[in-house]
Amino acid sequence: MSNPKFVVVEGLEGAGKSTAISTILDVFSEQGLGDVAQTREPGGTVLAEKMRSLVKDDHDGEQLQDISELLLIYAARVQLVENVIKPALAQGRWVLGDRHDLSSQAYQGGGRKIPADIMANLKQITLGDFKPALTLYLDIDPELGLQRARGRGELDRIEKMDLSFFERARDRYLQAAQQDPTIITINANQDLESVTADIRHALNTWFQHSISAN
Amino acid sequence: MSNPKFVVVEGLEGAGKSTAISTILDVFSEQGLGDVAQTREPGGTVLAEKMRSLVKDDHDGEQLQDISELLLIYAARVQLVENVIKPALAQGRWVLGDRHDLSSQAYQGGGRKIPADIMANLKQITLGDFKPALTLYLDIDPELGLQRARGRGELDRIEKMDLSFFERARDRYLQAAQQDPTIITINANQDLESVTADIRHALNTWFQHSISAN
Repeated sequence: MSNPKFVVVEGLEGAGKSTAISTILDVFSEQGLGDVAQTREPGGTVLAEKMRSLVKDDHDGEQLQDISELLLIYAARVQLVENVIKPALAQGRWVLGDRHDLSSQAYQGGGRKIPADIMANLKQITLGDFKPALTLYLDIDPELGLQRARGRGELDRIEKMDLSFFERARDRYLQAAQQDPTIITINANQDLESVTADIRHALNTWFQHSISAN
Repeated sequence: MSNPKFVVVEGLEGAGKSTAISTILDVFSEQGLGDVAQTREPGGTVLAEKMRSLVKDDHDGEQLQDISELLLIYAARVQLVENVIKPALAQGRWVLGDRHDLSSQAYQGGGRKIPADIMANLKQITLGDFKPALTLYLDIDPELGLQRARGRGELDRIEKMDLSFFERARDRYLQAAQQDPTIITINANQDLESVTADIRHALNTWFQHSISAN
């Protein structure tokens, strides 16, 4: 079941997720939605942040297997969904997520080429039919995104992947956006002001529709 | 495919796994099997030991979800199998494991009541048809085992589960042993000398058969 108050921002490294989150929080505030729970993935709980560091950091040079990475990310997601997101939604709060399941579809399914049946199985085991009401996908050319991300400083284990990895991830994002009407694509190759204006427009339109639908 | 040189010891807390492992190493040595790789699960690599501590320790009181626990244990297992066990087998070494997949079937499948289809799915995703040639299952009455384990000192998060949890785990062990001829059950309720004699007998018989089969 899609959760009417769960909104997620997605996109490659350097797509501008942080700025987008500020913009969305502004719109939420203008709409008078009250205190918003913010999450990030992988992470967002004590245990999930420890799992995040297993995924992101180096551990004496030991190779993290692709399947282990995937299982860790889903373990972290279950902790966040069950211990933070569902309780917040149950209290009637809005939840704004910096990444959610679509990131795994893009990075592990697309980037790491983990077979579709494994991806579908794990999603079913961990989330069932839990999903956001709206995902804003910031679509950026991977080369431009990586250039921006590298400008920010040191890169983690995933940010160090090569361009083709991010191209496969982007393809997967675009594919998903074509198939799922709850994913809205924002052109993040534009200048910041245009991106912000597009996010505002998309979000306000969505609010109008969801209000008239209820 | 079953791996001719991978032997595993299984059993509840307090069943006598450590003593059994010494006995098995003695028999291996008498058989002239050379240097044996020893593993323990969950754990056995830098990353897998970190995952083990996520499963076993307390983390600011945050509840570890059953599915997250299961995913962490399988992530640790993949690290161990791919980075340690398979490379050792590929070098022609024998591997002796303190726990392996059967523990998950017993503790998470039986103890935590995780549905059979999820258990089967995860096993397939992570291990495929990789399995030990021989598992020695030390069968002990859970009450007696827990009494022994408690005598050793402080209990971890899993050892603190109630008796019914371990009864369900034992049922699952016994069920598996009935169905899988590569699992040999040792009566671990006996005195130490009898258990050791039974392990020696079982292992020597197995060596005779596997030698005559090859």
